Amino acid sequence: MYRTKTCGELRLTNAGESVTLAGWVQRVRKMGAMTFVDLRDRYGITQLVFNEETNAELCAAANKLGREFVIQVEGTVNERYSKNKNIPTGDIEIIASKLNILNESEIPPFTIEDNTDGGDDIRMKYRYLDLRRTAVRKNLELRHRMCIEVRNYLSNLGFLEVETPMLIGSTPEGARDFVVPSRMNPGQFYALPQSPQTLKQLLMVSGFDRYFQIVKCFRDEDLRADRQPEFTQIDCEMSFVTQEDIIQTFEGMAKHLFKTLRGVEFDQPFLRLPWAEAMRRFGSDKPDMRFGMEFVELDDILKTGSFPVFDNAAYIGGICAPGCAVYTRKQLDQLTDFVKRPQIGAKGLVYARVQDDGTVKSSVDKFYDQTILQQLKEKMQANPGDLILILSGDDAMKTRKQLCELRLEMGERLGLRDKNKFALLWVTEFPMFEWSDEEQRLMAMHHPFTHPMDEDIHLLDTDPAAVRADAYDMVCNGVEVGGGSIRIHDPQLQEKMFEILGFTPEKAQEQFGFLMNAFKYGAPPHGGLAYGLDRWVSIFAGLDSIRDCIAFPKNNSGRDVMLDAPSAIDQKQLDELCLNLNVKE
Amino acid sequence: MYRTKTCGELRLTNAGESVTLAGWVQRVRKMGAMTFVDLRDRYGITQLVFNEETNAELCAAANKLGREFVIQVEGTVNERYSKNKNIPTGDIEIIASKLNILNESEIPPFTIEDNTDGGDDIRMKYRYLDLRRTAVRKNLELRHRMCIEVRNYLSNLGFLEVETPMLIGSTPEGARDFVVPSRMNPGQFYALPQSPQTLKQLLMVSGFDRYFQIVKCFRDEDLRADRQPEFTQIDCEMSFVTQEDIIQTFEGMAKHLFKTLRGVEFDQPFLRLPWAEAMRRFGSDKPDMRFGMEFVELDDILKTGSFPVFDNAAYIGGICAPGCAVYTRKQLDQLTDFVKRPQIGAKGLVYARVQDDGTVKSSVDKFYDQTILQQLKEKMQANPGDLILILSGDDAMKTRKQLCELRLEMGERLGLRDKNKFALLWVTEFPMFEWSDEEQRLMAMHHPFTHPMDEDIHLLDTDPAAVRADAYDMVCNGVEVGGGSIRIHDPQLQEKMFEILGFTPEKAQEQFGFLMNAFKYGAPPHGGLAYGLDRWVSIFAGLDSIRDCIAFPKNNSGRDVMLDAPSAIDQKQLDELCLNLNVKE
Repeated sequence: MYRTKTCGELRLTNAGESVTLAGWVQRVRKMGAMTFVDLRDRYGITQLVFNEETNAELCAAANKLGREFVIQVEGTVNERYSKNKNIPTGDIEIIASKLNILNESEIPPFTIEDNTDGGDDIRMKYRYLDLRRTAVRKNLELRHRMCIEVRNYLSNLGFLEVETPMLIGSTPEGARDFVVPSRMNPGQFYALPQSPQTLKQLLMVSGFDRYFQIVKCFRDEDLRADRQPEFTQIDCEMSFVTQEDIIQTFEGMAKHLFKTLRGVEFDQPFLRLPWAEAMRRFGSDKPDMRFGMEFVELDDILKTGSFPVFDNAAYIGGICAPGCAVYTRKQLDQLTDFVKRPQIGAKGLVYARVQDDGTVKSSVDKFYDQTILQQLKEKMQANPGDLILILSGDDAMKTRKQLCELRLEMGERLGLRDKNKFALLWVTEFPMFEWSDEEQRLMAMHHPFTHPMDEDIHLLDTDPAAVRADAYDMVCNGVEVGGGSIRIHDPQLQEKMFEILGFTPEKAQEQFGFLMNAFKYGAPPHGGLAYGLDRWVSIFAGLDSIRDCIAFPKNNSGRDVMLDAPSAIDQKQLDELCLNLNVKE
Repeated sequence: MYRTKTCGELRLTNAGESVTLAGWVQRVRKMGAMTFVDLRDRYGITQLVFNEETNAELCAAANKLGREFVIQVEGTVNERYSKNKNIPTGDIEIIASKLNILNESEIPPFTIEDNTDGGDDIRMKYRYLDLRRTAVRKNLELRHRMCIEVRNYLSNLGFLEVETPMLIGSTPEGARDFVVPSRMNPGQFYALPQSPQTLKQLLMVSGFDRYFQIVKCFRDEDLRADRQPEFTQIDCEMSFVTQEDIIQTFEGMAKHLFKTLRGVEFDQPFLRLPWAEAMRRFGSDKPDMRFGMEFVELDDILKTGSFPVFDNAAYIGGICAPGCAVYTRKQLDQLTDFVKRPQIGAKGLVYARVQDDGTVKSSVDKFYDQTILQQLKEKMQANPGDLILILSGDDAMKTRKQLCELRLEMGERLGLRDKNKFALLWVTEFPMFEWSDEEQRLMAMHHPFTHPMDEDIHLLDTDPAAVRADAYDMVCNGVEVGGGSIRIHDPQLQEKMFEILGFTPEKAQEQFGFLMNAFKYGAPPHGGLAYGLDRWVSIFAGLDSIRDCIAFPKNNSGRDVMLDAPSAIDQKQLDELCLNLNVKE
């Protein structure tokens, strides 16, 4: 070892000890005859002292050290005269007696500090330097600890981690696959898994009973913000279980993680909201429950025949923003602009201020008298000083989603979305299918292996759109962190499902034959779920983006700018794979 | 839950309890009025009893159960009349009161027993049924436990598991990459990692200090027996360390794994053999040390001018097979044929039997008198009843490798390669380079980032072929289970290495620029190693092939015969990727 101690472990009790440290030069300060060097490693920062009067040569060498030089130092632990209460090693310093430069460094392109001067692009290009920053490294340390906790928790419950293959077959259903040409099978391709869904179901057929895997998954999607082409899933499956068993098991895991990693304890079971209720009350299947501001439906009060916009609406809903009656005209215009943005798509925003005297002043005063407005106030349970915000539209679901965006915006503005507060719930009873305008058919909302709720199976023939699924999502702070379902284990029901989804028997056999065949040999009832690890870590770490909990992330074009990947390959490689490029200039 | 207990947990102390079990029908036996069903799950087998006299209808239903039906049974735990001492649940049975068929099964294509009647091909096609066999599942359970132990061991030593990307850049150096066309970057390709080598070195530049990862790696090689296109590595790297630190750390891990997973304790440090010595004594860089039979060099004794084959040989070496003087002519011919096989390539085999009276009878008696043969006996330390086997050749290294094969064959024949015995060692001081006839240049024996031994650095300019590397392999029972090296952290030395390997500065920059750039910003001294997890598990499990510790392995053509992957993809997918097939019929 090049060191006897790390830069994070020395304390006052070590005073007088001879030690050897190694690390990076964080900064050098010359103060008169003394030179102070902050030496950094993963474990902390320790101050080194060089004294020109006792060892001029050594001190001169220290004065020549540049930022990020890698050095090895021998010295004696000494109590500091002026202690630094901000760091655990702040009580001591090392009186250096020997200095060995292990490697020099050019001046880094940005400062290696928590608040760096480096922009996003340069930090990504020099990610290996960015990762030296404590703030970034801490996220990866958290990720490591979370994985250790997840593995030990599940292993103690009898779950086996089984590695499923990365080179599998391509299935056009679902998102786009990344494919891998096979040299040994010319003209044929593997696909990288979007998830090990079918493989984990096969493991249930194999009697593995309880499976999990922390596993890389791949989706070749056009990358929106905060999506990565490769991401990591905590993938789980259990046999002989009902939805209740799965919820109990993984709620237990979530609570364990919050307790061990964040010191947060939940003494109550997580709320469970049926999907329809979540949509009605919050306009979202992943409501942020850190704050209230629930939707109030206002059709009964506001459809008076006086305001055609409302009279003709399929849905009128409002939220009450406490204390916001003071909002200026400008602020209200901003909110109107916000809901009218194309991503949200509302036509306009109606507001009503509850004034100090209890009267209501609204943007639609010419259509409603104070009696109606007082009824509105009552129904909204609004108090003096509150601001009522109302959206309407001719598609109830769309309008709810618009109102959801407004609610989240108001939550943000009111500071109600505190990153150190965690509100978890289960959303259940998802619709089995959703209509695709593009494909002109019903699509599986979850995936084609999802089991319908038993009480709705009779509707599969008569009203499939009304069938609810035995599916569930875990939601934290408005983010879906995990989701899953009970799976179909009955080959006939699976065939029926493919039929409803528009698969011919041949196509179903071609794409999922291996699974349907497996189901002929005694498939147990089973179900499971998958957590998005990147998202889960980012919530625990209080990050805005999943990027900062990934060591080497890709940018929005799917590029690794540090490695400069993807890139062109040799003609020889293409020839071996029997491929020609067909790139239009 | 569909059960209150598993099929592996009921004991005599549970007698009288009402329980519900669920699992697979292993077998049904009708004995008079009684029907016995063995119910199986991952945890064990429990006997169910149905009595025609007490419940004729239920018993009739039980009689109709087929193999591998999935059932749920309610009943009472009862002490067995005739106990089965072979299974932990053998003291009890369940008097069934209710039977629920959860799923039927077609007759499986092979028996779900440890000694199945299914051949390799059919077991792979129906791998989900093969995995039901306890013998196969136990390997995967061991794999799971090994991963848990590895992670906790390394985590406790401060190692962080960091996920490195799967979609990286292709480097023509080394084995062939699997590549992944990028839709968003037409004409460009990602590569799947052959190992995270450069990325883990970047993590050391980042100051991560101690990294590990259990990670899938990919090599598009022509598959020899017991190679898989995707395999799993326990990948590790440490900063500020010397070879000694790495050996200590990972020898500790190996000992921990043997102790916890196999109950085997090693009280001595593992042997360390320099590569040159391993080659001299065993003709292998991964000697099987479960038995002796070391090479003895015989040039001094047998070069007498009487036998031209030996007189002209660059190397003459022998091994002494104890007790094999009784070998018949036929057995000796078999051995001769063995060494003459093209894979081994010896020209012939000389043998000498030490007879009961101490005289030596050899296949070269006409060239050597008894005095010489007695000298041979002395040097070989052979005793009456022993068989001396001798190979010679004009290339010492090649002949040693041939003699190695013979030694292993004799070890096998003599039962000295016991799967329950474990002999571990480190092989060190590997040559830095090896000459490639194909490429007509020196190639890195390990990889281009390997640090030369300090004492040999001066030879880089004058005699690079003589330079030894700061590299080490861990060998267990004749198998290389892990290997690694101290890496170069000095940019100048790295440049020199690329130069010796025949890289132009431009080519080095193109392929490894990101790493060489990183090294400009303060790279610490570092080194590491990687274990082959599949091989490691297979040794612990006593398997002949790594396949049986992989859930869904591929065959020798790189195919997953269960999934039928790889396969053709849609033209639409090819178009999106800007690719044309160019397959010659």
